[in-house]
Amino acid sequence: MTIPRSESEVLDIADPLAHWRDEFVIPDPDLIYLDGNSLGMTPRRTVAALGEVVEQWAGDLISSWWDHDWLDLPLTVGDELAPVIGARAGEVAVHDSTTVCLFQLVNVALDLAPGRRVVAVEPSEFPTDRYVVAGVSRLRDVTVIEDVDDVEQADVVVRSLVDYRTAALVDMARETARAAAAGTTIIWDLSHAAGVVEVDLTAAGAELAAGCTYKFLNGGPGAPAYTYVRGEIHNRVTQPIWGWYGQVDQFAMDRPFEPRPGAARLLNGTPGILGLTAAREGIRLTARAGIGALADKARRLTDHGLRLAADHGLDVATGTGSRRRGGHVAIRHPDAFTLHAELGSRKIIVDKRDPDVLRFGMSPLTTRFVDVHDALAVLTDLIARR
Amino acid sequence: MTIPRSESEVLDIADPLAHWRDEFVIPDPDLIYLDGNSLGMTPRRTVAALGEVVEQWAGDLISSWWDHDWLDLPLTVGDELAPVIGARAGEVAVHDSTTVCLFQLVNVALDLAPGRRVVAVEPSEFPTDRYVVAGVSRLRDVTVIEDVDDVEQADVVVRSLVDYRTAALVDMARETARAAAAGTTIIWDLSHAAGVVEVDLTAAGAELAAGCTYKFLNGGPGAPAYTYVRGEIHNRVTQPIWGWYGQVDQFAMDRPFEPRPGAARLLNGTPGILGLTAAREGIRLTARAGIGALADKARRLTDHGLRLAADHGLDVATGTGSRRRGGHVAIRHPDAFTLHAELGSRKIIVDKRDPDVLRFGMSPLTTRFVDVHDALAVLTDLIARR
Repeated sequence: MTIPRSESEVLDIADPLAHWRDEFVIPDPDLIYLDGNSLGMTPRRTVAALGEVVEQWAGDLISSWWDHDWLDLPLTVGDELAPVIGARAGEVAVHDSTTVCLFQLVNVALDLAPGRRVVAVEPSEFPTDRYVVAGVSRLRDVTVIEDVDDVEQADVVVRSLVDYRTAALVDMARETARAAAAGTTIIWDLSHAAGVVEVDLTAAGAELAAGCTYKFLNGGPGAPAYTYVRGEIHNRVTQPIWGWYGQVDQFAMDRPFEPRPGAARLLNGTPGILGLTAAREGIRLTARAGIGALADKARRLTDHGLRLAADHGLDVATGTGSRRRGGHVAIRHPDAFTLHAELGSRKIIVDKRDPDVLRFGMSPLTTRFVDVHDALAVLTDLIARR
Repeated sequence: MTIPRSESEVLDIADPLAHWRDEFVIPDPDLIYLDGNSLGMTPRRTVAALGEVVEQWAGDLISSWWDHDWLDLPLTVGDELAPVIGARAGEVAVHDSTTVCLFQLVNVALDLAPGRRVVAVEPSEFPTDRYVVAGVSRLRDVTVIEDVDDVEQADVVVRSLVDYRTAALVDMARETARAAAAGTTIIWDLSHAAGVVEVDLTAAGAELAAGCTYKFLNGGPGAPAYTYVRGEIHNRVTQPIWGWYGQVDQFAMDRPFEPRPGAARLLNGTPGILGLTAAREGIRLTARAGIGALADKARRLTDHGLRLAADHGLDVATGTGSRRRGGHVAIRHPDAFTLHAELGSRKIIVDKRDPDVLRFGMSPLTTRFVDVHDALAVLTDLIARR
């Protein structure tokens, strides 16, 4: 314990992004919230925006779908999200849950070339990603393999850009190119990456991606997820859940299904306008602050956390190469679950994951360097007393 | 035009449900809103409930999933909806869009018995229902037929209880029994029925149903839909979109997929808490007012509308048998779309549907008898002036 708190205080004073914290509701000045990687904090603007959208509903009723552009909200919010993940306008739709988005994309990827039937997903991958693949394999002729590195063996790979436990960050451009050379499509799950690391889907040549908006994007509990499909392949993409929001000329009711052009073809049923409204406000904050600056701060926060953790002699499960890491620091301890509760009773909120991991999430819009200092100091103290 | 307005005024004074209108935001005292069958009005309580849930998010952050019972909200709201559609506790989950719910159920129904591969859906059925079936037929070995009455030919039938254009109401008990005798499963789409006609899934022996909550249930724009699966067949049901909210012991991250017991197995990804919160308030109003009384008022409203329309010599597309009808009156006119706009400019909001139908929706919680009188009088006047 040789690093003084004043060092963190100085980092906060010098932090050019510090003022973004003022955009959020701070429920308790003593709270140290290091779980923005599970559920981001509430933007103050979201509270107002929800009030406004309820006023639209109450006041303008059915005509709001046209007069307030609700019909295309999944696409306009998608366009606002696009720069955060290095996508271009018209390539992103915000809709449904990550699970539904991934389900659509696994089927899309299988249909991109004839004869595709092998899907790779790691046993350590986030559960929903594994479950989606297993579910698809029950529905159609698919074999599931576990080695995502062996792109020669797989037709489709489902892979998180940032590992939800260790925060390991995959090289998207390298892996996408390696897969493309083997004729394999990677579906990138950006859930633990968007808003905290630089993602450039366009430059990487990525074709398909999905992710959630309730973590670093601060979109609200169960906020709608998003699907990215590279513009060049839109015409070859038909997702399997056909519904009236994915249909050309939606209100011509008697026609057979024909998918809309562009990212709109990823939509299925009626989008949830309340959830989309909240998601938009969170996404806008990240877009305004700029993903470059945010990713830089997240790296410095995690660097700081790793240095403090080493100083305290904690067992760090996160890789230490500063470029190859997402926005959280994982610490292992056999009593992780008890420590999680003890931290909570001291108003320090972190995340836990089976079997022995504490996740210290560093959301660059809201986390201060002193938060990292104080949380790790208390954790060290709790461990020392055991 | 022989029926005086005073007759409608007397019906409103005698209406035992008239006070429920006070539970809603009335944006303009002159507004006549007859489109609650497309988007229901805003319950006053919803405005407060959304404020409360945002406070939970902002104040209690990640722990809200446990402390405010968000994790099971799709099921608790499902239990509140159950009596409205004659389901039992534990049989309904509120989640996703109607399109996703129907997609899940078509796959469930196909898997309920070996060798199923013929799905029937009418060409006049609501587009999403047709599209879902067509999408499934592209994904797996399915033949689509158009005659839903010939249950001998179909393994699975997708059918709206109330026709979205004509308001024709199908006899659910009779059709379910007829289908069951042929070994056929009907998936009932309750979108235009729930909250306005009496639905008794249990008594009818229905096995599968879905529907939306943003029409007569006043759940808000794009509010989550719901899936019903009869308790007796839960153990035989596995829906195709596997995600972590449908998984036993959700936070044990390293296990293979195993569906949760009961209606929880219908869930897939993280539920949208804002949309669910709004849906719950709308559902609660219907449950509190009682579907029996509401359906009775809806019948009297539509009877009233049909009598007035006949008096005005309008071309009614709705059946006149009072028991075989949902909660709207459809009127045909070659200039329906122009008349729709002209009514709108006079603050009379109705719905239009291709090619020539005006729908006068009568939402029993909010519609007054004088609304029906005034709207049809103005329509008649507009037609006379042409």
